[in-house]
Amino acid sequence: MAFIPDVQKIEFEGPKSKNPLAFKHYDAAEVVDGKSMAEHLRFSVAYWHTFRGDGSDPFGPGTISRPWDDGTESVENAKTRARVAFEVFEKLGVPFYCFHDRDVAPEGDNLRESNRKLDEVVAVLKEEQERSGVRLLWGTANLFSNPRFAHGAATSPNADVFAYAAAQVKKAIEVTHELGGENYVFWGGREGYQSVYNTDMRRELDHMGSFLRMAHEHCRNIGFSGQLLVEPKPREPMKHQYDYDVGNVIAFLRAHDLLGPVKLNVETNHATLAGHDMIHEIELAASQDALGSVDANVGDPMLGWDTDQFPTNIYLTTQIMMVLLRYGGISPGGLNFDAKVRRESYDVIDIFHAHIGAMDALARGLKIAAAIKTDGALEKIVRDRYSSYDSGIGKKIDERKTTFAELESYMIERGNPARSPSGRQELLENLINEYI
Amino acid sequence: MAFIPDVQKIEFEGPKSKNPLAFKHYDAAEVVDGKSMAEHLRFSVAYWHTFRGDGSDPFGPGTISRPWDDGTESVENAKTRARVAFEVFEKLGVPFYCFHDRDVAPEGDNLRESNRKLDEVVAVLKEEQERSGVRLLWGTANLFSNPRFAHGAATSPNADVFAYAAAQVKKAIEVTHELGGENYVFWGGREGYQSVYNTDMRRELDHMGSFLRMAHEHCRNIGFSGQLLVEPKPREPMKHQYDYDVGNVIAFLRAHDLLGPVKLNVETNHATLAGHDMIHEIELAASQDALGSVDANVGDPMLGWDTDQFPTNIYLTTQIMMVLLRYGGISPGGLNFDAKVRRESYDVIDIFHAHIGAMDALARGLKIAAAIKTDGALEKIVRDRYSSYDSGIGKKIDERKTTFAELESYMIERGNPARSPSGRQELLENLINEYI
Amino acid sequence: MAFIPDVQKIEFEGPKSKNPLAFKHYDAAEVVDGKSMAEHLRFSVAYWHTFRGDGSDPFGPGTISRPWDDGTESVENAKTRARVAFEVFEKLGVPFYCFHDRDVAPEGDNLRESNRKLDEVVAVLKEEQERSGVRLLWGTANLFSNPRFAHGAATSPNADVFAYAAAQVKKAIEVTHELGGENYVFWGGREGYQSVYNTDMRRELDHMGSFLRMAHEHCRNIGFSGQLLVEPKPREPMKHQYDYDVGNVIAFLRAHDLLGPVKLNVETNHATLAGHDMIHEIELAASQDALGSVDANVGDPMLGWDTDQFPTNIYLTTQIMMVLLRYGGISPGGLNFDAKVRRESYDVIDIFHAHIGAMDALARGLKIAAAIKTDGALEKIVRDRYSSYDSGIGKKIDERKTTFAELESYMIERGNPARSPSGRQELLENLINEYI
Amino acid sequence: MAFIPDVQKIEFEGPKSKNPLAFKHYDAAEVVDGKSMAEHLRFSVAYWHTFRGDGSDPFGPGTISRPWDDGTESVENAKTRARVAFEVFEKLGVPFYCFHDRDVAPEGDNLRESNRKLDEVVAVLKEEQERSGVRLLWGTANLFSNPRFAHGAATSPNADVFAYAAAQVKKAIEVTHELGGENYVFWGGREGYQSVYNTDMRRELDHMGSFLRMAHEHCRNIGFSGQLLVEPKPREPMKHQYDYDVGNVIAFLRAHDLLGPVKLNVETNHATLAGHDMIHEIELAASQDALGSVDANVGDPMLGWDTDQFPTNIYLTTQIMMVLLRYGGISPGGLNFDAKVRRESYDVIDIFHAHIGAMDALARGLKIAAAIKTDGALEKIVRDRYSSYDSGIGKKIDERKTTFAELESYMIERGNPARSPSGRQELLENLINEYI
Repeated sequence: MAFIPDVQKIEFEGPKSKNPLAFKHYDAAEVVDGKSMAEHLRFSVAYWHTFRGDGSDPFGPGTISRPWDDGTESVENAKTRARVAFEVFEKLGVPFYCFHDRDVAPEGDNLRESNRKLDEVVAVLKEEQERSGVRLLWGTANLFSNPRFAHGAATSPNADVFAYAAAQVKKAIEVTHELGGENYVFWGGREGYQSVYNTDMRRELDHMGSFLRMAHEHCRNIGFSGQLLVEPKPREPMKHQYDYDVGNVIAFLRAHDLLGPVKLNVETNHATLAGHDMIHEIELAASQDALGSVDANVGDPMLGWDTDQFPTNIYLTTQIMMVLLRYGGISPGGLNFDAKVRRESYDVIDIFHAHIGAMDALARGLKIAAAIKTDGALEKIVRDRYSSYDSGIGKKIDERKTTFAELESYMIERGNPARSPSGRQELLENLINEYI
Repeated sequence: MAFIPDVQKIEFEGPKSKNPLAFKHYDAAEVVDGKSMAEHLRFSVAYWHTFRGDGSDPFGPGTISRPWDDGTESVENAKTRARVAFEVFEKLGVPFYCFHDRDVAPEGDNLRESNRKLDEVVAVLKEEQERSGVRLLWGTANLFSNPRFAHGAATSPNADVFAYAAAQVKKAIEVTHELGGENYVFWGGREGYQSVYNTDMRRELDHMGSFLRMAHEHCRNIGFSGQLLVEPKPREPMKHQYDYDVGNVIAFLRAHDLLGPVKLNVETNHATLAGHDMIHEIELAASQDALGSVDANVGDPMLGWDTDQFPTNIYLTTQIMMVLLRYGGISPGGLNFDAKVRRESYDVIDIFHAHIGAMDALARGLKIAAAIKTDGALEKIVRDRYSSYDSGIGKKIDERKTTFAELESYMIERGNPARSPSGRQELLENLINEYI
Repeated sequence: MAFIPDVQKIEFEGPKSKNPLAFKHYDAAEVVDGKSMAEHLRFSVAYWHTFRGDGSDPFGPGTISRPWDDGTESVENAKTRARVAFEVFEKLGVPFYCFHDRDVAPEGDNLRESNRKLDEVVAVLKEEQERSGVRLLWGTANLFSNPRFAHGAATSPNADVFAYAAAQVKKAIEVTHELGGENYVFWGGREGYQSVYNTDMRRELDHMGSFLRMAHEHCRNIGFSGQLLVEPKPREPMKHQYDYDVGNVIAFLRAHDLLGPVKLNVETNHATLAGHDMIHEIELAASQDALGSVDANVGDPMLGWDTDQFPTNIYLTTQIMMVLLRYGGISPGGLNFDAKVRRESYDVIDIFHAHIGAMDALARGLKIAAAIKTDGALEKIVRDRYSSYDSGIGKKIDERKTTFAELESYMIERGNPARSPSGRQELLENLINEYI
Repeated sequence: MAFIPDVQKIEFEGPKSKNPLAFKHYDAAEVVDGKSMAEHLRFSVAYWHTFRGDGSDPFGPGTISRPWDDGTESVENAKTRARVAFEVFEKLGVPFYCFHDRDVAPEGDNLRESNRKLDEVVAVLKEEQERSGVRLLWGTANLFSNPRFAHGAATSPNADVFAYAAAQVKKAIEVTHELGGENYVFWGGREGYQSVYNTDMRRELDHMGSFLRMAHEHCRNIGFSGQLLVEPKPREPMKHQYDYDVGNVIAFLRAHDLLGPVKLNVETNHATLAGHDMIHEIELAASQDALGSVDANVGDPMLGWDTDQFPTNIYLTTQIMMVLLRYGGISPGGLNFDAKVRRESYDVIDIFHAHIGAMDALARGLKIAAAIKTDGALEKIVRDRYSSYDSGIGKKIDERKTTFAELESYMIERGNPARSPSGRQELLENLINEYI
């Protein structure tokens, strides 16, 4: 029985199709740069936005009510939602999904009861995974909604809250493991502060490090070999969050000797809220061997909060795919649609429009990025630009075989450097446009 | 002979004075929290802004011409400027100054000539230091103004430019050493990019690391034991600079194993351009034992560029001094006024108004911070807020003696955490106001 | 019977008091610059934040539950809340309050029922007003929370929604009139758009104008002579709101010939979200005879959303009061605390800390602004700065009695303008600090 | 004799060309939506950036030196530059140019001399216009670079500066008239303030109004019937500029009864600096019959200053052209490239890459916008969305034939509005992508 009988499986119809419920660019089996689109893109639906989002915002309650949802916090309702979710995954042809523990199952009155309810729903998820072949990209624990986390979770001034968070993450990791999740994500929405005046930053950072170390130990103990990922975000809900951006998270992971076992889940909207272009953040992470997965959404550059929109901008999707092609792909991570339909887009069909548009935009980005790579013109320009490091004094610098004294002698001799060629930014922007 | 005969030494006259050319709060000898104000505050004048700033901006040329400056790039003119500078330092009663190599002396046609000119002026600086007792807080090299650095210095795609920058920094360190400088600063204004499309980020970051390592080695070789400092700034002049903020610089220093030998010079205006309050940045740096020195200025929170204004906001100066008192002071760093008079404030007397106001504001901040510390009410509130980590399960967390498994058992037993007390942000803001 | 027995009436105890539940600066009867503090400041409590705020944010539900609130949407509960509100007003000594229709009374299943419920609660408000002497500063209608307003109210593409909004505002104006409200406010939280692609901006702006004109006509029809006020906000909840800032609202009011009958309610947090300092916005409004009332709160300049914090910054409160003293006060408007306790400040007592701190901060601002005015030094500097317009060619310009031709002849004669004196910004900032 | 012998006239070669010095989309004669591309786009080169820009920024001097420029401020050099400029206009096939008085000719020691020098160069411009057929889109006066304007021009506190500015604008208008300029632009780069403390905003706004009124009178007196345009910019170089954005300028023009005679010149980079998308600003201006011309550039949404980049983003150019097609085109205004090559792009050839890329991007935008218009699907969705205003109560609202009383009766009867359809933002974004 279908919950959404009006929508059939979304098929690839090619760029000329005018059918809004067809893919114009995403063809899962099409081979691009040596791999199928499905392998490159590893799309994932975000359970929270797509099945729990109700369209509420700080100035109004929800606008969205789904026909299959009875509005209760019962386990039965949660199980139904899970069945619907898999119907959507399959109709979209998306191979992965992601969830928070509290998205899929209701919270109980205490930890034991919450765990029990979670287990009940996980059984359904497992059954659906097996039936459909859809897999879990990553699981995570919601450590920010419940009022107990108002002051933080791992950085709470209340040791009991730290302990509760630890127990909750322990369970979420175990459940992720049970479902064959390929990654586990940490997003510390309340790990920061509203006021420096009441905050002991040193102690909080220290607790946050201990928390992550213990989580990592627990994964080893239970044999969970999925990738661990920290997701940077600069602020919101807190005034300041410690996992501010890729650089700050890397600083933190290096301080606790966790870079390597732990990588990053980088989100477009979080990047821009921190003042960075998405391509900067993923390139920075990848250049440090720290890129684990991508939350494929987009914010509005004029807005100062997380709008979590579906990514439809071809420049953005091209840039993302250029980095992924350069660094060998995103696996075992994926492209997770941490995005929500607008508050005013309250029909079920809007979910489909949203995902189809984003999948097509990323597929176009992939094809464009592959064409740029194949063509090689851009890569050559960049390689040539740095060619002075391929020989002579440049090579010595590149290979770390020189000193300030030697460089001074060299330059005293020469007097002045050779002139650098133009940066050709305008030409390069035109070049990118040739492929778009 | 005085260059500025109309201005006498600025004296402390106390809060009731209406004399704009007197200190109302800064009394160098006054003991606050066990040290003199002079020892706490370690004020420094920035040579570039105060003696080379001409009031130009992107929409118009300079508005400022000083009576002592003949407008030429001669060494003689540079020497005169140096004499004037020390007159200003002495009249202000500021014990330190900072400079870039190219501020104090003109650049020659090649490296050898530039070095010779620099030496000539350094001889005057040395003489003036000895005469006046004013000391060098830090030196640095200007690796951003000359067009040769348009594409970066240590991150230039041109190996010759890297070599030139290395030679220039080598000399600047030596000169700083010769003048007894207590620190040496790296600010990489062009170490970043305008366009990701023409940039090999991994290679650039690698070169930047090598550069800093070689600089550190050179300091050891010549026996310079001053503190090395990197100054974060997120952008401007480039679209993106690698030393984005405290967190990003710490990530970089840890990657190259330089945190410890190298610390941070944190600037208010750069902090806010990166989206952080100044108190966040210095607290974060200090909590990682990485705070080296402070560039005491302020930006306009409504503006997206570096305005480098003199700090007169008492909340800001109080917050800075609260952190410095908490972490044992700023020495061997200092509070350097990396600030300039406005383009419309083109009289010599404006230099004095500007420094007097900032020195008084920081002196008030010091007195307020000391009163808050002595009173102890704020500190007690914060300590109590985290007291659950002083015993029981909290202590085990704090001492890293527990595991997720133990924490889960503990919490399964308890069911739910104890309620956290209110964060009391409103009370704390009122409390701060009681001291202001 | 008191609902909050632990808190007594807040008394003025002076700056040396250490009692957090006493005023240190606000003494209602104290005469400053010829009027009592109460007359100058006309404080108002915002019903929605203080009695309906639950601490929810986009990442978590409410943290606040009040002992007097049974959590239901019954009229009885609403009446109880009203009684509590007046207890708080009286204990704080605040002479005014403000409300939205849907804050004070629950919404019914249709317009008639909603109106009936509102009338029931209004009867209690009226009784409490008479008993306590507390008055209504302004009323307003909530046209943004109910999902029917998701696409706008006066700018909804749905004519029925326009009609519903008109009916709701009609009732809200009548209720405000009945309660003797001195102003009526329009804040169009959804009057804007999320996407330009689905928006007919010209038609929406036209409808918005008609709505306001009809509202104004209705006021005349029923004899409501209170001041009408539009409150600017640039964005949030929408991507873009038409009432972006003071300038945009004035443009709109002039287009519809409503400036005069309609003025502005200017909020600090909305000002900064639009990129303006609060002093800019109120000075601009006042200089156009368009300043009606003030929402006295503050945002965080590092954050891109409305945090609605209580104003405790003395610079801000001084600047506000400087403008109000310059333009003859805020009456019949007032200083309404459109501010909420933090999500982490969930105790009843936090409401008192918050209001006391803000009232004290504004009282200090008033005293400082009055001292600056009495002293006259700042005013004289500004007056002198423009003195060239007091005679000669300047006077002709000022009095609009010259032409480009005459000005050219004058200047051809002179060749160049006289030099302008320094702007003295640094001196002026120091001068302000002398009073703080 | 050609100054740039290596570059020939840029020809249209179509989308498959790999020649970086050919148009791939801009074909001047191609007819789109009933007019030639040349008529639609009315491209203009900005004299200041392209012939006077030297690549300087706040952290370094110029990087650009042109082979034809002898570096002096002589009239001869200025005349040569003018000849080069027309060679570039012709090679690019751009039909218009724009200038400031001080771009084209050097400033003299006094007004009379400046005017004389300007006249000498204008004679050359006139000759070149006649020879080439290239026309003047608009002229303007530079009232921001010379230090005399440090405190403003029309808003200077110095009446002599006001008079000087008036005389300078008078001459600039006359010169524009002589050259057959189709518009005259006012951009008041210093019409604002750095500090509210030294500013009399009411008096400044009043002077600014008088200035514009006198300018308008002068145009009538001399028979200049070109369109007058004010160009909004929120800030930079000042902390705050009065012509903040489209809304603020319209408010100002309405206050002085100048809207109509005066329209707006809207720039992308200024729009985003004010927090608006470009499409918002031009739609708002056009919807008020106030759109006069466009400065076609783009900023970096992550940066807080004017980067004045060439527009290459197809989404942006499509949005601009959608508005222009909707409102009947931009004539007598045009699309002026107020854009500069990057500081690192210092070769002459970069000027060509930059303009070719921008022209192609706008040509693509035009073709896409025309396809969207022809298809009609988007327009139909929007029209349908508002169809409730085409009959019944909606029509009465639209035609301003109803009252709050009638609307209340209507709604009391109905009880609740009909449900609004989904906003379909996701579908619309996908739809736009179909054309890109």
